[in-house]
Amino acid sequence: MIIQLSKQITEEQKQLVFTSIEEQNCKWREIDTQLGSYLLVLGKIGFDIRLIGNLPGITDIHRVTDDYKLVSGKWKTHPTAIVLDDQVSIGAGDLTVMAGPCSIEGEEQILATVEFLEKLNIRIMRGGVFKPRSSPYSYRGAGIDGLKLWHSICAPRGIRIISEVMEMDQIDAMYPYVDIYQVGARNSQNFNLLDALGRIDKPVMIKRGLSGTIDELLYSAEYVFSGGNEKIILCERGIRTYEKAYRNTFDINAIPILKEKSHLPVIADPSHGTGIRSLVEPIALASVAAGADGVIVEIHRTPEKATSDAQQTLDFDEFGRLCAKARAVYNLVAG
Amino acid sequence: MIIQLSKQITEEQKQLVFTSIEEQNCKWREIDTQLGSYLLVLGKIGFDIRLIGNLPGITDIHRVTDDYKLVSGKWKTHPTAIVLDDQVSIGAGDLTVMAGPCSIEGEEQILATVEFLEKLNIRIMRGGVFKPRSSPYSYRGAGIDGLKLWHSICAPRGIRIISEVMEMDQIDAMYPYVDIYQVGARNSQNFNLLDALGRIDKPVMIKRGLSGTIDELLYSAEYVFSGGNEKIILCERGIRTYEKAYRNTFDINAIPILKEKSHLPVIADPSHGTGIRSLVEPIALASVAAGADGVIVEIHRTPEKATSDAQQTLDFDEFGRLCAKARAVYNLVAG
Amino acid sequence: MIIQLSKQITEEQKQLVFTSIEEQNCKWREIDTQLGSYLLVLGKIGFDIRLIGNLPGITDIHRVTDDYKLVSGKWKTHPTAIVLDDQVSIGAGDLTVMAGPCSIEGEEQILATVEFLEKLNIRIMRGGVFKPRSSPYSYRGAGIDGLKLWHSICAPRGIRIISEVMEMDQIDAMYPYVDIYQVGARNSQNFNLLDALGRIDKPVMIKRGLSGTIDELLYSAEYVFSGGNEKIILCERGIRTYEKAYRNTFDINAIPILKEKSHLPVIADPSHGTGIRSLVEPIALASVAAGADGVIVEIHRTPEKATSDAQQTLDFDEFGRLCAKARAVYNLVAG
Amino acid sequence: MIIQLSKQITEEQKQLVFTSIEEQNCKWREIDTQLGSYLLVLGKIGFDIRLIGNLPGITDIHRVTDDYKLVSGKWKTHPTAIVLDDQVSIGAGDLTVMAGPCSIEGEEQILATVEFLEKLNIRIMRGGVFKPRSSPYSYRGAGIDGLKLWHSICAPRGIRIISEVMEMDQIDAMYPYVDIYQVGARNSQNFNLLDALGRIDKPVMIKRGLSGTIDELLYSAEYVFSGGNEKIILCERGIRTYEKAYRNTFDINAIPILKEKSHLPVIADPSHGTGIRSLVEPIALASVAAGADGVIVEIHRTPEKATSDAQQTLDFDEFGRLCAKARAVYNLVAG
Repeated sequence: MIIQLSKQITEEQKQLVFTSIEEQNCKWREIDTQLGSYLLVLGKIGFDIRLIGNLPGITDIHRVTDDYKLVSGKWKTHPTAIVLDDQVSIGAGDLTVMAGPCSIEGEEQILATVEFLEKLNIRIMRGGVFKPRSSPYSYRGAGIDGLKLWHSICAPRGIRIISEVMEMDQIDAMYPYVDIYQVGARNSQNFNLLDALGRIDKPVMIKRGLSGTIDELLYSAEYVFSGGNEKIILCERGIRTYEKAYRNTFDINAIPILKEKSHLPVIADPSHGTGIRSLVEPIALASVAAGADGVIVEIHRTPEKATSDAQQTLDFDEFGRLCAKARAVYNLVAG
Repeated sequence: MIIQLSKQITEEQKQLVFTSIEEQNCKWREIDTQLGSYLLVLGKIGFDIRLIGNLPGITDIHRVTDDYKLVSGKWKTHPTAIVLDDQVSIGAGDLTVMAGPCSIEGEEQILATVEFLEKLNIRIMRGGVFKPRSSPYSYRGAGIDGLKLWHSICAPRGIRIISEVMEMDQIDAMYPYVDIYQVGARNSQNFNLLDALGRIDKPVMIKRGLSGTIDELLYSAEYVFSGGNEKIILCERGIRTYEKAYRNTFDINAIPILKEKSHLPVIADPSHGTGIRSLVEPIALASVAAGADGVIVEIHRTPEKATSDAQQTLDFDEFGRLCAKARAVYNLVAG
Repeated sequence: MIIQLSKQITEEQKQLVFTSIEEQNCKWREIDTQLGSYLLVLGKIGFDIRLIGNLPGITDIHRVTDDYKLVSGKWKTHPTAIVLDDQVSIGAGDLTVMAGPCSIEGEEQILATVEFLEKLNIRIMRGGVFKPRSSPYSYRGAGIDGLKLWHSICAPRGIRIISEVMEMDQIDAMYPYVDIYQVGARNSQNFNLLDALGRIDKPVMIKRGLSGTIDELLYSAEYVFSGGNEKIILCERGIRTYEKAYRNTFDINAIPILKEKSHLPVIADPSHGTGIRSLVEPIALASVAAGADGVIVEIHRTPEKATSDAQQTLDFDEFGRLCAKARAVYNLVAG
Repeated sequence: MIIQLSKQITEEQKQLVFTSIEEQNCKWREIDTQLGSYLLVLGKIGFDIRLIGNLPGITDIHRVTDDYKLVSGKWKTHPTAIVLDDQVSIGAGDLTVMAGPCSIEGEEQILATVEFLEKLNIRIMRGGVFKPRSSPYSYRGAGIDGLKLWHSICAPRGIRIISEVMEMDQIDAMYPYVDIYQVGARNSQNFNLLDALGRIDKPVMIKRGLSGTIDELLYSAEYVFSGGNEKIILCERGIRTYEKAYRNTFDINAIPILKEKSHLPVIADPSHGTGIRSLVEPIALASVAAGADGVIVEIHRTPEKATSDAQQTLDFDEFGRLCAKARAVYNLVAG
């Protein structure tokens, strides 16, 4: 059960609510986020709502039968929009497009990408500076200095930055330079990291694990929300199956089911989701048709020269076409 | 290597071609379909095309590096359209919609469905009369009598019938009453059945196996084509993965990759592909956005009363809306 | 519910039982096998056993809560043994070993294998004459003539033959020459074939499907049993997973769980189960340690010259060592 | 390529080696572990070994074609043993058994377990104090205080402790109280954690990811080794598949293939590997038969009262029987 508390609730009124819950032999957990105050009442089925429903300081009470609570779509009637500024928001009725290289390489590359994104009126640039790599001998990214350089180019132009955080230690270091933290597939169940991201006030995009279930992704989001951060974006990026024709099997079904089960915005990553350049456009369009709030796409001025993920990276022309079609499909389906 | 032969080729000219191939120590296999004559040259890499290219009776020669040959997209520049009649064709530039109940139940049900399909200008009705069931104690379908009844209602109205064949014996029995044979997921690698379907002249729609690979589906199609039947439709219907949130995981990636690897039309089955009613529409739209030539959907006047598959069956209103949106997406993406 | 009928039950007594069941609004299905007579009462939970328990002609009554009934371990207290002759039985307290080439090639190969098996006191030889192949252009086996030749060599020596049947038509043709019919992974849910095998009196070994579930395998066995044939062997042969280090992922867990859920003997196929020669011995030993009643192994005098499956085939020496160890592990674990 | 350096190598000699490598346009990476000094030469195929083979200070040179190098079995002819003390070593020719509860609960529980382990002559106790849980609302373990209590009971008796580390921060805090760090399945690709564990001198057991590949597990081990810690144990604990009959699908194939590809010891976890109590013994025996160096098993005095994982936990009697059988199988197979 989720009890929404008024922002004006007094300490005294709160105590009254606590007592009332305890009298019914229930446990509660208080959650304060940037946006609201909640009491979670856990582990009881027969709780009598009428006994607390009229207490002062309570805004609303919702029964949520799912095991995840705060991210469930059962209590929030409107989908959540993540607002970054006047011009940039996610899940607010426009198609969100995030694009950029797999790895941040240097000034020239950043600048070329930024200028191209501006032409297409895209306001969020993706890029990796800490790269999770299967092999310890692979390139691990430009690091915090790369991020600072990137930020110095984007910030004056109002281009927002999304980048992956791999480790609790990096959260503070990245904070001034990043607008959205991305949790990668391999850290999708790094619970300490998720806990820590619950304590900051910037949006977090959580990618589904390599073989993460829908429920596990929602639980991971619940970690962040219950830690105090409501600004969560879910991302489908392909799962592992027996099929070897693509690097990952983009799971289109995840999009409508996440939209159904949760109030959080859902972004599709067709680049990692397939690992094949020619599949990026059709899967991006499919995702939008299936109800995704946006797409995140790997692009590079010269994909064949990209430091990483060249085989799934679009060039600017390909991406421009994808973008136009995706917006048309979005308007058709959402309209 | 595929050698296309002229229909006017004489027996003498043919012998000359055979000899020429054998002189290069290659084996050939002659394939005659409803539409053409082909020689497959197998198992040789260094074949010198110039030595036979100018022989009389040869229309064209194509190198195909895939292991499947005749169904490969490498030799046929235009996608194949399956033409049933003036009004009904598949893969010819219009969205194909097939719809109907999981199981054929009786006259009233058939009639209601047919009349509804006619209103939506849908010309192909699906339905099962031989039902593959995991348990021997489940209902196994209305059988050949059900098919006859169904045909007696559809034929006068020009509504075409697609229905599953489970066994070689049924091919002849079904022949007068069916317009498209469907090979189900469980028979996707029933090679004797595929061989036998290669010897008839009606279209065959092959569903991908429960955990069939893209290559296996194309090989199964190659069985039918090399048996003499070019009229083949491929169908994605969901695969088995670890995810339990849906009955099957509809593999959207299969659609663009099958279109890329093969010249055959591709149909999406979002009903079996997900097993969840609320997912049928978004996955149908996604499939069309990803390039599918059509969709096949389970519908029922009163889904909750359907003999089988009730939980994934749309009612007529839901399907009407899906249909309108799917056509709009098709026109947008294909246009 | 399973009602075991006495072999001496009269027609009159039977009618009494039927009437009694129908009076409780239940449906029954009569099943006569080589070994017994059963009435299955389906689809009723609240059936009152006392009302029929004392009727003449009833030997025993068992409630079985599984959806599969006759193959369930819930009603049969002793594991089933499949007895071929005085010396050859499966599941009767000795380790069963079946071995032979992937494909039957010719007299010399058969003879060499038979003589080797005799030295190891192995009484069942495996081999394929009808080969299910993904590609229509692959070798499809020596056919019925190959089987006849093979039988002519084995029969005088008392070596029993297990071979795959792919199609209903082949059942009768193979009958005089085969001792155990094998249903391959791709036909594991070919229900018409399973039905037909229920009507014969020779043992049937059913392989688990490429991505068949435990329940589906048991349901497939239920098809054969309810068709009238109790002589069923289950076979684990590896499943499809994301892992590419082996051709299939041998599912060791299937062995103890099948032994727990069913009374049927379970054979392990480590050759197809892994597809890697060096893994055949450890997986064979593991299977025996996990409770398998036997193993079926691909062997060839000169594996590198085998017509098919060379990469997973053991030579005679390797197999001899495997055999000795497997018997020692069996005696240790079963003892 | 791996160049083993003498411990007596002088700085001058080292420089000579570096120069020689660079002259061939190769990059090198120096790795110092508790046990040895290595130079990895990466990314070159045509390196001429003769040019450096005779340089002073070089003990041995090995070409390793795998992408992982130091953990590969291609350069180390003898399997690695992890020696904890005179009595406790892993991979040294005796079956290693680790056992204990899922979660450390309190003094009484610890003491009962320790005394039981001593009776069976088992020297390594497992237990969780930091628990990775899908839901943020589940119990997360007794924490560092639980570990201290546990250690205070085990240390005087010479019982060694293996416990999971979830986060870089915990490494130092746990250090005085833990003998083997366990990296859980969800952190199997937490590369920062693996890097950090490479900098300590206690053994690390790495569990395969939920859907980790064999190669990924070896790469994760390579992170630890190349970080400076050679004491690595690999652990198979079940993977995700479509099969729902067990919680995970224990992948028996991983055991022989890891032993083949790597020189590191391999431990089987049949408890998490199956999630089903009745399967723990057969899968443990199977693992030993397949070549595992040991098993790790969840046990509890009263499994039904365990804080977590009750459904897969053995009681003491069951485990005693398992242990005796596992040792017999080990002696048979290894002997």
